[in-house]
Amino acid sequence: MKQKIYDIIFEADTKAGRVFDISLIVLIIFSVTIVMLESLPGKSEAFYSILNILEWIVTVAFLLEYIIRLWVVRHPWRYATSFFGIIDLLAIIPTFLGLVFIGTHMLVVLRALRLLRVFRVLKLTRYINEASHLWKALIASRNKIGVFLFTVIIMVVILGTLMYIIESDDGSGFTSIPISIYWAVVTLTTVGYGDIAPVTALGQTLAGIVMIMGYAIIAVPTGIVTAELTRKQDDETTTQVCPACLAEGHDKDATHCKFCGEKL
Amino acid sequence: MKQKIYDIIFEADTKAGRVFDISLIVLIIFSVTIVMLESLPGKSEAFYSILNILEWIVTVAFLLEYIIRLWVVRHPWRYATSFFGIIDLLAIIPTFLGLVFIGTHMLVVLRALRLLRVFRVLKLTRYINEASHLWKALIASRNKIGVFLFTVIIMVVILGTLMYIIESDDGSGFTSIPISIYWAVVTLTTVGYGDIAPVTALGQTLAGIVMIMGYAIIAVPTGIVTAELTRKQDDETTTQVCPACLAEGHDKDATHCKFCGEKL
Amino acid sequence: MKQKIYDIIFEADTKAGRVFDISLIVLIIFSVTIVMLESLPGKSEAFYSILNILEWIVTVAFLLEYIIRLWVVRHPWRYATSFFGIIDLLAIIPTFLGLVFIGTHMLVVLRALRLLRVFRVLKLTRYINEASHLWKALIASRNKIGVFLFTVIIMVVILGTLMYIIESDDGSGFTSIPISIYWAVVTLTTVGYGDIAPVTALGQTLAGIVMIMGYAIIAVPTGIVTAELTRKQDDETTTQVCPACLAEGHDKDATHCKFCGEKL
Amino acid sequence: MKQKIYDIIFEADTKAGRVFDISLIVLIIFSVTIVMLESLPGKSEAFYSILNILEWIVTVAFLLEYIIRLWVVRHPWRYATSFFGIIDLLAIIPTFLGLVFIGTHMLVVLRALRLLRVFRVLKLTRYINEASHLWKALIASRNKIGVFLFTVIIMVVILGTLMYIIESDDGSGFTSIPISIYWAVVTLTTVGYGDIAPVTALGQTLAGIVMIMGYAIIAVPTGIVTAELTRKQDDETTTQVCPACLAEGHDKDATHCKFCGEKL
Repeated sequence: MKQKIYDIIFEADTKAGRVFDISLIVLIIFSVTIVMLESLPGKSEAFYSILNILEWIVTVAFLLEYIIRLWVVRHPWRYATSFFGIIDLLAIIPTFLGLVFIGTHMLVVLRALRLLRVFRVLKLTRYINEASHLWKALIASRNKIGVFLFTVIIMVVILGTLMYIIESDDGSGFTSIPISIYWAVVTLTTVGYGDIAPVTALGQTLAGIVMIMGYAIIAVPTGIVTAELTRKQDDETTTQVCPACLAEGHDKDATHCKFCGEKL
Repeated sequence: MKQKIYDIIFEADTKAGRVFDISLIVLIIFSVTIVMLESLPGKSEAFYSILNILEWIVTVAFLLEYIIRLWVVRHPWRYATSFFGIIDLLAIIPTFLGLVFIGTHMLVVLRALRLLRVFRVLKLTRYINEASHLWKALIASRNKIGVFLFTVIIMVVILGTLMYIIESDDGSGFTSIPISIYWAVVTLTTVGYGDIAPVTALGQTLAGIVMIMGYAIIAVPTGIVTAELTRKQDDETTTQVCPACLAEGHDKDATHCKFCGEKL
Repeated sequence: MKQKIYDIIFEADTKAGRVFDISLIVLIIFSVTIVMLESLPGKSEAFYSILNILEWIVTVAFLLEYIIRLWVVRHPWRYATSFFGIIDLLAIIPTFLGLVFIGTHMLVVLRALRLLRVFRVLKLTRYINEASHLWKALIASRNKIGVFLFTVIIMVVILGTLMYIIESDDGSGFTSIPISIYWAVVTLTTVGYGDIAPVTALGQTLAGIVMIMGYAIIAVPTGIVTAELTRKQDDETTTQVCPACLAEGHDKDATHCKFCGEKL
Repeated sequence: MKQKIYDIIFEADTKAGRVFDISLIVLIIFSVTIVMLESLPGKSEAFYSILNILEWIVTVAFLLEYIIRLWVVRHPWRYATSFFGIIDLLAIIPTFLGLVFIGTHMLVVLRALRLLRVFRVLKLTRYINEASHLWKALIASRNKIGVFLFTVIIMVVILGTLMYIIESDDGSGFTSIPISIYWAVVTLTTVGYGDIAPVTALGQTLAGIVMIMGYAIIAVPTGIVTAELTRKQDDETTTQVCPACLAEGHDKDATHCKFCGEKL
């Protein structure tokens, strides 16, 4: 029976397993919707109570599921410390935490992360392949991105301080260096809220330079990721040479020369 | 005579066909302009009446055209359910819908989509090729873009909730989780209206991290599309099928099947 | 003497020619600076008069230069209708136009375009090569960019109208369809002023979708230009095969096989 | 002993050297934090005094370190004029400068630049390689980026003036040409603060065109950097010189000169 439950919960090949996974998706989306409704202002006391009760029901359901998962897997500890095991736990804790710290129960939206698992279980392998493709490209460029981020951080600290020195006396929102660094991030990333904006001529000139820098800088991470994704594609041809006609450029899956038909 | 009308309406090789297509473009642009003028505030009653009448005239013209199209095509149902058939219908309905629901008649701007067809009819094949080239690149990367969008949606839900927990007590516009998710979208896409902006130190720090993340994330779709467009250039595979083993995906310069060595 | 003046004005090989070109750069920047100073609020009457006189002096200088150019070139009409001939004329007209239409004399900033010519004359060929490289990449992708722009325009018209229908009753700035289209452009390009922003739940949801669309769409022109620039690089190898060892991948400038030394 | 101190300060192979470097990182971050705290409004007099004393202690420590560095290196002048030597000096000066000019002591955040050196010393060679890789890509495309920036500057001057002519009478913030140029930069880079935004129909139309132009233009630097990064990968040319004809630019796999056929 333990094996049967395992198949239902962890696999998706049987009909029961599929039904379980779809119920889980529905329950997760339902649960996230509850939290959103709860946050809306101007709701009646009664409505709030219903939402509260529903949240507890969902939480208990997830708690039971978590306990069953722990029970049916062969290595409970390995599951509990795995990526998805931690997410499953994080999906339950906030409701209980909300009893102690007001507002924290809303962190149940972390349940949304569980959707990542369900997609895995549903054998959407095609999507998973693409995701891992993207992930590998990001991993492969993590050094370049690290260097880039480090440089950006040093830049925003220096630029923020410069703007604070220039603008702080003009009541334009640059009230401290941390706030000015926040402005530098907002500007360099081209978000541009406008809650803080320079008003002096010197400040606006520096801001203009920062923006054009940001314009050039935005090219860097894009270039890194694109170069990585393009490189991945090129990896699909081998350097193999046909023994008969010496032609090159054969695909990895080729077993015969595409020019003369000779076996590779 | 039916064939003659068909040639005029559906083809653009004859002089009459060309005149028809150009009139259609003019009429569409005229009709969209009417709706825009109608929406302008501070217009007199008389002017409004004229616009209203003009809109009905154009709508009746389009209705007649639609009926004629249905009449002259060999398979009316196939036309009616085709992409352009649906657009042709959508170009008429809103005016009648406006009799029931106020404001909805402005959806006649959907007529602008008809311009897509006219371009096709005008045999701007060069443009069409480019469009289909771009379209194929987008289709080819739909899995990667799907994974990307799904991840972004989970991210904005979690980030929005975090910001709501942090900022909701400080009267800075984060009045509910849906609104905070809207803020997260505005920020992550680097749009940055500034209608909602964090005011607490913690909120601004998290916002800064979200922005730098958005900076890195914006690289991903660009990288995907670029890699796809670059690949397309290199892509010299044909749709040729090997007569012996039925394998596909042969390069343009291939003369033998790369899997079995059979002559193509 | 006519030839001598020609050499000074149109060429930059002699010392006099170089001095002339540098004076021209200085004069252009000086002239643009005058217009900027003139636009600053709160200047005294006397200062304004000085600026006005200086502008007339510069204009007369440019007028004389234009007349001399016309006089010394072999084909005055061909010069007058060339790209740089038109710019030279545009650099003079606004001051005279300012006598009739108030404010238009500020169009003398079109003089800044003359800097493009001076760079050409200064034989900064390296820069010119790069510029023409970029220009060719843009020209090569003009069809794709045309299709892209056309699609974007249809999209902003439809999205703007939808937002007008949704938001117009809520006093959130969507006062007419043209204004709403302006909002759609501001949002889709991720500029995001925030002067107009949706306030209804439905409007904000649609806005969020528009932003994420804009996020994906921004990838398209970048992908087009990058693919074009990358392609340009690949064009540097030929498909030539070495007659001795059958190796491929030789550079365009190669005269001998890089693997066996055989003449190509 | 001088050699021993040299090893500790300039190298990171010994344990003492490692301890020194880590202390330096901590001290730099501590020092930058002090300046940030100092800029926060609403702090007590006593707290301010403590921060002030701490800053002087750190500055004296950096001063001592700078003197010792000068003393232990073989060529003090070469060190003092090197990139890192100048940064080390810039890290000390602002505190003393602050005695004369109020506010300037905050420039000590330039100390953050020292972190770049520490990373070098910590032998994070992997990161350095990536950084130099990125740097080379940027250097290689400096001409293209130069042309691009020059064009952008001419564009914002002309666009800013046009907007000033259109909008200056409508009290929408376009109070002078320099301010309007600032607006053009804010818009073209898609930052979009919204502190200045067009209000007239003509101004909004022009703004829309500027935005779509910015949309297309943002593709250019990205394309340049990406093409460069992609090329770098393919780039298998060596610095080898042909012994016979002295030609350069041979591919890594080349065994013969591609110009004269001589063996390399």
